[in-house]
Amino acid sequence: MDYEKLTQRIYEFIKTKVKSANAKGVVLGLSGGIDSALVATLCKNALKTDIFALLMPSKYSNEQNLQDALKLCKKLNIEYKIIKIDKILASFLEQSQDTNKIRMGNLCARIRMSLLYDYSALKGYLVVGTSNKSELMLGYGTIYGDLACAFNPIGSLYKSEIYNLATFLNLDQAFIQKAPSADLWVGQNDQEDLGFSYEEIDQGLKALEFNDEKKILKLNPELISMLKERMAKNAFKRSLPEIFNDLA
Amino acid sequence: MDYEKLTQRIYEFIKTKVKSANAKGVVLGLSGGIDSALVATLCKNALKTDIFALLMPSKYSNEQNLQDALKLCKKLNIEYKIIKIDKILASFLEQSQDTNKIRMGNLCARIRMSLLYDYSALKGYLVVGTSNKSELMLGYGTIYGDLACAFNPIGSLYKSEIYNLATFLNLDQAFIQKAPSADLWVGQNDQEDLGFSYEEIDQGLKALEFNDEKKILKLNPELISMLKERMAKNAFKRSLPEIFNDLA
Repeated sequence: MDYEKLTQRIYEFIKTKVKSANAKGVVLGLSGGIDSALVATLCKNALKTDIFALLMPSKYSNEQNLQDALKLCKKLNIEYKIIKIDKILASFLEQSQDTNKIRMGNLCARIRMSLLYDYSALKGYLVVGTSNKSELMLGYGTIYGDLACAFNPIGSLYKSEIYNLATFLNLDQAFIQKAPSADLWVGQNDQEDLGFSYEEIDQGLKALEFNDEKKILKLNPELISMLKERMAKNAFKRSLPEIFNDLA
Repeated sequence: MDYEKLTQRIYEFIKTKVKSANAKGVVLGLSGGIDSALVATLCKNALKTDIFALLMPSKYSNEQNLQDALKLCKKLNIEYKIIKIDKILASFLEQSQDTNKIRMGNLCARIRMSLLYDYSALKGYLVVGTSNKSELMLGYGTIYGDLACAFNPIGSLYKSEIYNLATFLNLDQAFIQKAPSADLWVGQNDQEDLGFSYEEIDQGLKALEFNDEKKILKLNPELISMLKERMAKNAFKRSLPEIFNDLA
């Protein structure tokens, strides 16, 4: 893949989306992970100004992630605000019942979405998405939460390509070397959750995307069945809600 | 329109959606307005059991709406829970800046969505949408808020058809006679907001839907230009976020 050409096209995409919506800029959530760090860098390179980052840790978030996100804002010279979401989360939990880790993670993702959209309306900015293709295909994200955005510049890139592009754009090693995590609870680790490394997952997803039977047969059958199951179960996250439409 | 046939088809749609998702039932937000009252009635007729209603007033909500919603839950014998969202809203407002009425309304809509999805996960139920076609075409709703759902049984019905179907199904006159309102702030009234009655709006929307030039010319030009402007401005609410997809 020609990363120089790719970045130029992504910059054009970002500029076109902002202009065609008559928006003044973009707002994004910075988690301290590689995906949002890459999107912030792409937006900065494309737009130069009018980028606003919200850093929205909870008490379950890794402190190092906040430090890495802050360092990036300073390096890129982008405006940011830190909002600790614990009080909002606590007010939701008062109204929730038997909340488990996953539902709490979903609440956090939707709180962050609500804040991003509130600031997007305040500033006249668009919310930029930061989900990569591996996550989108697996539905590894919260619908109407972190999957919610006005547009997404990296959603066609597999996680392995995210690393390559981040390296090409000289992102800090901190982002490239940390274990991928949705950071929804202490020690949460994507690859442990999914049971396979992103390298294996991406090989499987590519084979499935192109329906490459020969390659599929060479891969771990447990990997393939996990991928197929997640893709089917979460297909609804990649489509609009169905509206009854069979009028007499 | 044959409302008997229509209701039967909607019941099939609801049953099919629940079954194909392996869900156990449905959850919906009951505002006390006609749209959600109609959806609750349709779901009750289709499913008999496994319907859960959340009543989520804020201090800005009309007390009569809560009473009407409660009365409906009792009449239909459906399980419900009242959650006052003021404390959650206050925790968001602490983190918001220069919040105006519209942004506060959007926050309320997203709080309600987050609670609906939390209870949907608790119960293994699907979130049913309650937006009608007039609202959907105009984008008169909050993206990732009240527009968010798993499926929507009334999204192909214009507001005027909603009234007809509600009358056919013998909904309480309270729902049929109250002024349409998103109930986002005291005294908020859809038709005052939009500047025209839903009867006029639906005439205009139908003419525009079928691109009926002759009819369009007969209607109030201010109505037509308001509708066109809202439809264009809010088209993004009816589509998935665009993902960059032009890989070298």
